[in-house]
Order: sequence, then C-alpha cells, then structure tokens
Amino acid sequence: MKFEITILSSGTGNPTNKLNQSAQYLHVYNNHFLLDCGESTQHQIIKFGLSYQKIQRIFISHLHADHYCGLIGLINTMNLNRRNNDLHIHAPKELKNIISVQLKHSKVELGFEIKYFPLSFNSIKKIYENNSLQVFSFPLKHRIPTCGFLFREKQLPRNIKKDILKERQIPIEAFKTLKNGENYEAENGETYLFEECTNPPPPSRSYAYITDTLCEEAVVKIIEYVDLLYHEASFCEEHKQRALESFHSTAQQAAAIASKAHVKKLIIGHFSTRYKETDSFLEEASAIFSNTELAFEGKRISISLKK
Amino acid sequence: MKFEITILSSGTGNPTNKLNQSAQYLHVYNNHFLLDCGESTQHQIIKFGLSYQKIQRIFISHLHADHYCGLIGLINTMNLNRRNNDLHIHAPKELKNIISVQLKHSKVELGFEIKYFPLSFNSIKKIYENNSLQVFSFPLKHRIPTCGFLFREKQLPRNIKKDILKERQIPIEAFKTLKNGENYEAENGETYLFEECTNPPPPSRSYAYITDTLCEEAVVKIIEYVDLLYHEASFCEEHKQRALESFHSTAQQAAAIASKAHVKKLIIGHFSTRYKETDSFLEEASAIFSNTELAFEGKRISISLKK
Repeated sequence: MKFEITILSSGTGNPTNKLNQSAQYLHVYNNHFLLDCGESTQHQIIKFGLSYQKIQRIFISHLHADHYCGLIGLINTMNLNRRNNDLHIHAPKELKNIISVQLKHSKVELGFEIKYFPLSFNSIKKIYENNSLQVFSFPLKHRIPTCGFLFREKQLPRNIKKDILKERQIPIEAFKTLKNGENYEAENGETYLFEECTNPPPPSRSYAYITDTLCEEAVVKIIEYVDLLYHEASFCEEHKQRALESFHSTAQQAAAIASKAHVKKLIIGHFSTRYKETDSFLEEASAIFSNTELAFEGKRISISLKK
Repeated sequence: MKFEITILSSGTGNPTNKLNQSAQYLHVYNNHFLLDCGESTQHQIIKFGLSYQKIQRIFISHLHADHYCGLIGLINTMNLNRRNNDLHIHAPKELKNIISVQLKHSKVELGFEIKYFPLSFNSIKKIYENNSLQVFSFPLKHRIPTCGFLFREKQLPRNIKKDILKERQIPIEAFKTLKNGENYEAENGETYLFEECTNPPPPSRSYAYITDTLCEEAVVKIIEYVDLLYHEASFCEEHKQRALESFHSTAQQAAAIASKAHVKKLIIGHFSTRYKETDSFLEEASAIFSNTELAFEGKRISISLKK
C-alpha cells in the first residue's frame, strides 16, 4: 500500500531558473492529492511522470500567489484534456472567487465540477476522511490565514498469526472479527481470542505538511510521532530576525519542532533565493535533528509499512 | 538601435514538458515590452537572461489563461524585488479585476503602481506612442475578444551626405532642419536643399504579433510590409476543420496571410500538442511563404536597420 510524497518544487515566491514554487504530490493507496500549487506545477507534474488527471483533491495552505497561482493553468489543462471527474479543493474560502473570476472572463465552461471546501483557521479540524486515511488542517502563523495539513493512514487490521491459523484451524468466517480486534465464537462453541490468533497491525503512517509559518510550538502536539514532516525553512540562523519579521522559519527552528514532536524524518524546503547554496540549511538543521533532508524537485519519499 | 524579439515560449494552453505557454519579449530602443504572459513566463525571462524589472509595458492579447496567467506571479516577483516603477498593462478590461482580486486576498501591497489600459475590439487603434515607436492594437477573431499588436518604429531622420557636407561646408545649425526633410536658409543667404544634402532615412522597422485567431483576411491591410510577422499556427492542414471550430489558424493559412501582406519574414508558433513533431508546420507554411521560421523557446530575431 503506497504512501509516497513527491516534491514537485520547493521554492519561494521569488523563483529562479532552478527553483520553482511550492507544490507536492501525495499518493496514498488510491488517493492522489496535490499540496499547494505554485506557478508551473502542471509542468512539474508532467516532468516527474505523474498524472494531473488522477488528482482528486487539492490542499492550498494559503493565498500567497506562490502557493496557488498554478491552479488556473492546471484546471484549464485538466479541462482541455476532457476531465469529467469532480475536483475537490480545500483552501481559504476566497480561492473560489479567484478561480471563478478567471473562468468567467475566459468564458471557459468546465466539463467537470470544482467543489470548494473552505478551511478554518481556529483549531485542528478533520477536513476529509475515506476508508484509507484522514486529513486534518491546523492553523499556522503567517502574514495571512494559513493552514498546515496532516495526512494519517487509518488503523490497518490485525494480522492472523500463520502458525496459529494452521494449529487451531481458524475458520475463514472468523478472520474479519479477529482482524478487527474482537474475539470470535464459532458455532461449535469454540472461542478464538484475537490476542492469541493475531498480531497487532503495523502502525499507521502519517505525513505533516507545514508551510509558510513562524516557528510555532503549538503544532508539536498535532504532529507528534509522524513518520515524515515537511517544514518550511526559508532562512538560516544568521537571518533569524528576517524570518521573524516575514513570518517564516529558520532551518534550526524547523529542526527543533521535528525534535520536540519526535517525528521520524524531517524534510525542509522553501529556501529563500538569497542563498546561493543550501548546504548551510542542512548543516544547521541536522545539528539539532539528524534525520533531516533537503526538499529538492523530483525527490520522492516513500513511507513503508513497519512489520 | 535595437529592434529585437525573443520568443520566451510559444506553446498552447495544453503544456508539455518541453513547451511553455505564450510569451515574447520585445526590446526596441530603450523600450522593454512583454507580449502575453502565459504560465512560467517569469522563469523563461530569467532563463534567457532578460530582465523582468526592465519591462515597462505588457500587452495581453486575450483572457485565455495561457496568455495571461503568469502575470500574478511576475507582478509578485517584481514586488518582492522592490520594483518602484509603474507597470503599464494593455489588456481586455476584465484583467484589472483578475489581478486586483488576487492582490487583495493575498494582502500584498505593491510598491509600484499598475496602470491598466483597456483594449478595444472594434478596429485598429493607436494605443501607445513615444519618441521611438508607435503601438497599434487590432481585432482578431477568436472565441473571446482578442487583439493583435503592431509595433512600428517612428520614421528616423534623413542622413546628411558626407561628401556634400564637406563640399558645401553645411553649418551645424542646419543639420536638424535638413535631417527633418526641410530646406535651410543660412544667415548669409545661402540655401541648403534637403534633397541635395541628405539621403532618405532607412525605412522604419515593424513587428506584428497575431495570436490566437481564425485566419483573418482583414489583418492583411494592417500588417502590410512589416519586417516580421508572428502568426499563430495551431494546426496543420489535415486538421483545418478543427482550426475552424476552435477559432485557430493552420500553418498554410498563416503563410497565406504573410504572402498577401508582403511581410519580409514570418514566424509561426502556438503549435497544438497533438503533433509529435513540428517539421510539417514548417513544410506546409514554407510551400506558400518561403521565409518562414518556427518559433521556439529562446529564439531571438533582430531586425536590422536597412542602409
């Protein structure tokens, strides 16, 4: 069961020839999600061999253009290529107006429906759920209302122990009950204890996406123990004051959050283009949280099921 | 005196990994203009070593997203990099709303002013003039209101003949009058005839930009004798019917317009992504108008002054 994040791009609003704007592609089971949609996102999707038509849901963290302005192009391309599946967009409520105005003036009639789900910025909130995962939004601290997102795999069923299966000849009709963590009483009166017959399921996998924000201690509780945390790190420590003024984080601050939240891996991005190289980001973050990586275009991270 | 066109990109609304959306950079004397601004235009400007801050005026042909949706990103980048010069945008009037809505919701306060000049779609109209050139808009036939643009260098002054200058010792104060095509009478009563003392100026240079449109005979008179014509050619002849239905042109049709208008050179672009290669566009157009080139990213065409 896939749980894979692809960094489509990880730049800021000030693009360079090499660094595009924010966008990530999340593939969990049969869920295809887009996280933010900066300019050129559709090109990046094509470049990395992913499918824009498979995207069912888009999550937009906030309404700075570098996080959403690739949407209108993407929507038009979906339409030109005859999409007819609904597209669900979780975003600040004003996004609907931004997109609608553009579609109206271009007189484009979409062959599919866009369903908008406005974000709220007060507290953590479950914004989507299906049979494989849950999605939560939670408020960040940026210059305009901004949310982080948490993607959490649902608890998997317990696993039948192979040796007990054979030894006790567990009937097929008992499987579902035992896997769900309940005891099963057969018609012949025999009882199968789930704890005896099954192993606990692998732990649920999870991913937290945090951009753009001031270093925000309040998120620690929300993202505790996630397998992977993407946290923006626009600045290095020498520009800590600039980070504060512009409501962004430093690499050290991102690492401190990762450490306090006991996440398994940290990936940092959204580097300011004032830096000619990114080694110092990795250096500064790794000193605090060793399992840190830099978010570069095309990087794929799979979270595997633990045994 | 420079008169240079750079093709930033020449794709359609359906981008591929290789083909971006419409945008051209026009550098005439000290004028820096942008023609259309599809997604990723700011990246292309950087890629080809041009300067987005130098752009004084932007001309948007119509409000299909692939011709304007890079604007909001470009404007934000100009602002992030502390632009303070006004930006002038000639575009369908609704563009102002599209941009304003986005700036409002992102709470971005620009450090410069955007001045909007709404296009009209009834007839040819002079929309801008300075001491080096004139710009005209003229209506095209697309699914929504669309304009082409004509950039025409102003008549240069006549050139003083070197041999006569020496022979007749033309006084300096006579130069301006003679160069402007008027006779000069000196204080000593001597008369200098402009036709005797000067050569005619080199012919004015001109560029016409036509996208997106049905093949439109009415433009022939407007663009007659231009040095360079960019004409969209979305389709090859085998999809002539598709061109008609979608209000686009074929390569042959673009070449026929170039031929009837006696332009010096034709450049075609905006190729539909249904074609795997572009040789057939060149083949079909060249059969009708031999001085045809394909518009590829990064191509630069300079129009030199004729002697």
